[in-house]
Amino acid sequence: MGLDEAATKPHEQMAAHLAAKMEAVNTLIRARMASRHAPRIPQVTAHLVEAGGKRLRPMLTLATADLCGYDGDFDVHLAATVEFIHTATLLHDDVVDESGQRRGRPTANLLWDNKSSVLVGDYLFARAFQLMVETGSIRVLDILANASATIAEGEVLQLTAAQDLATTEEIYLQVVRGKTAALFSAATQVGGVIAGAPETQVKALFDYGDALGIAFQIVDDLLDYQGDARATGKNVGDDFRERKLTLPVIRAVAVANASEREFWSRTIERGVQREGDLEHALGLLKDHGTLDQTRAEALDWVARAKAALGHLPNHPVRRMLSDLADYVVARVN
Amino acid sequence: MGLDEAATKPHEQMAAHLAAKMEAVNTLIRARMASRHAPRIPQVTAHLVEAGGKRLRPMLTLATADLCGYDGDFDVHLAATVEFIHTATLLHDDVVDESGQRRGRPTANLLWDNKSSVLVGDYLFARAFQLMVETGSIRVLDILANASATIAEGEVLQLTAAQDLATTEEIYLQVVRGKTAALFSAATQVGGVIAGAPETQVKALFDYGDALGIAFQIVDDLLDYQGDARATGKNVGDDFRERKLTLPVIRAVAVANASEREFWSRTIERGVQREGDLEHALGLLKDHGTLDQTRAEALDWVARAKAALGHLPNHPVRRMLSDLADYVVARVN
Repeated sequence: MGLDEAATKPHEQMAAHLAAKMEAVNTLIRARMASRHAPRIPQVTAHLVEAGGKRLRPMLTLATADLCGYDGDFDVHLAATVEFIHTATLLHDDVVDESGQRRGRPTANLLWDNKSSVLVGDYLFARAFQLMVETGSIRVLDILANASATIAEGEVLQLTAAQDLATTEEIYLQVVRGKTAALFSAATQVGGVIAGAPETQVKALFDYGDALGIAFQIVDDLLDYQGDARATGKNVGDDFRERKLTLPVIRAVAVANASEREFWSRTIERGVQREGDLEHALGLLKDHGTLDQTRAEALDWVARAKAALGHLPNHPVRRMLSDLADYVVARVN
Repeated sequence: MGLDEAATKPHEQMAAHLAAKMEAVNTLIRARMASRHAPRIPQVTAHLVEAGGKRLRPMLTLATADLCGYDGDFDVHLAATVEFIHTATLLHDDVVDESGQRRGRPTANLLWDNKSSVLVGDYLFARAFQLMVETGSIRVLDILANASATIAEGEVLQLTAAQDLATTEEIYLQVVRGKTAALFSAATQVGGVIAGAPETQVKALFDYGDALGIAFQIVDDLLDYQGDARATGKNVGDDFRERKLTLPVIRAVAVANASEREFWSRTIERGVQREGDLEHALGLLKDHGTLDQTRAEALDWVARAKAALGHLPNHPVRRMLSDLADYVVARVN
C-alpha cells in the first residue's frame, strides 16, 4: 500500500461501503450522549466525538457483522457502544496523562476540568452499558465486560510499569492489549456474535481484532518518536516526557551500554530530564535500530491479522479489512 | 429509636442475620479485586473496601433477596456488584472533590495519585459488570445500567449546579437520586428481581430503596453542617468550602434578605471565602431553622420508605428494613 494521498484509504472505502449504517450510528450516538439534566455532558462528549476521529472501532463492528451476514439493527447499537467506551477511555486517559492535546485540539480536561472528564467518562460508560443491554445478548455483554476489565487493568499496569526499566516486552504487550487491542478485538468479535456466526469465525474475528489493535498501538508508539505533529495531532516525545516505556525504548534499554543505561535510568526512572535529552534518546533509538525493529514487529502483527481473515467468508468487506491492516502500518513513512 | 450505643443497631442486626451470606460476599470481593498483572489495584481497593464501611448497599441486596424467598447464590454476586459500583464511585468522587479524608482516613488519591483513583475505579466498575453478567439476567443488567447512568448524570449535574444560587430543591433531589438513591434502589430492586418476586413487590423494593437513599443523603448533607468529625469521619463544612448547594443552604437562600443573599453570593457563587464565614453560614442556617427543616424532610422520606414496606411479605427482614430507615435519621442528634 502506497502513501498516495489521492487514493482512497481503506477506512474511507469501508466508511463508504457502510455509509447508511454509519449514519445510523452517528444519529444514535448524538441521541444517547444527550442529557436532560446536565448539558455539560453533551458539550464535553461532542468535543471528542465530533473531533473528526476515523470512527475505526464502530466501523469494525459494522463491518464484521456485515461480513457474517447480519441483517438486523443491533450492529448499530453495538457500534455506538464501542465508540462510547472508546470515548470514555480517552476522557479518563487525558486526566491520567495530564495531556494537553488530542487529535490536534486541546483536551477536555483543559477546556473544562478533570472533574468533568472523569464524570462524563463514567456517564458514557454507563450509556454504553445501556446500549448493549438493549441487544439482549448475554454473550455480547460478557465480551464487552471482559474487554472493559482488560482495558482498565492494562491502564493501571501501564501506570505502574512506567518509569521501570525492568519492563519487559511481555509486560509491554499486556499493556498494549489493554489500552488498544482489547477494544478492537471486542469490536470485531461482537459483530460476528450478533450475526450468529459459527465459533471458528468468532475466534478468527477476535484474532484479527487483537492483532490489528496490537499493530495499531505499536505504530502509535513508534509515531510518538518519529511522527509529524501536524499529521498525527500528537506531541512528539510525549511518551519520553511521561516516562512511558514503549517498544523502541525497551529494545534500546536491552542493548544499552553502561553510559546509555545511566541515561535511561536518569530520564525514565528518576525522571530528571534536561534540554536536549529527547534528541539524545532519538539518537540512541536510531543507533540501535530499534525504530526499524519496532516497525518490523508491527508488520508481523499485520501479517497475523491478515492470516486470521482466511477463516472468514469471501466477501468484499474481507478485502477491506485486509487493506486496513496494511494501512495501519503505512501510517509510518 | 434511641442512641444508646449498647443497643444493637439495625444494620448490625441485619449483618448478624445475613452473616453467612455477607462472608461469601466478602470472599467474592477479595477474589475479584485481585489483579494478576497490576498489584496496585488490590492495594487501592483494599484501602477503601476494608476501611470498615457498613456494607449497607450489599446488605440491602442480600436482605431483599431473602425477604422475597430467594434460595440461590446469585444474590452474593449482585451484592458484590453493588459494593464494587459503590467503591468505584467513591474513588472517582474523591478525585472530583479533591477530598483529603474519607471514613476518617486519608483518601486513595492522596495516598497514591489521582491517576490510580480514576483507573482503579474503572477497573472495579468493569469487574462489577462481569459479576452481573454471570447472573445471566438481562433484567438485572438493565436495572444496574440505568442506575449507573443516573449516578454519573447526577454527579455531573452536581458539578454544574454547584456554585449556582438558582439551584432549586427539585435539582437538589435529582442530584441526591444520582449520588445516593439510585444505587440504593437498584440494590433493593435486584434482590427482588433475582428472587423472581412479583412486580408489585419489585416496585415496592424500588420505592423503599429510593426513599431510604434520599433520606440517607439528606442526613449526610445535614451532618456536613452539624456533624461530629470524630463520629462521621467527615470534615465539617466540606460542602460549604466546595460551594455545594445542599438543602440547608438552598432553604436559607430562599428566605435570605439582601445582605444574607450577598453573603451566599460571595461565598458560594464567587467562591470568596474568609475566616469566620463557615461560622456565619451556620448562624444563618440556625436563625432560619433550615437545619430543622432539613431533618423534617429526611423524616418524611423515612416515612415513605416504611410505607413501601407494607407491600412486602411479612418476614423478620421486613422489620429490620423498617428499623434501618429509622436509624438513618437517628444519626442526627
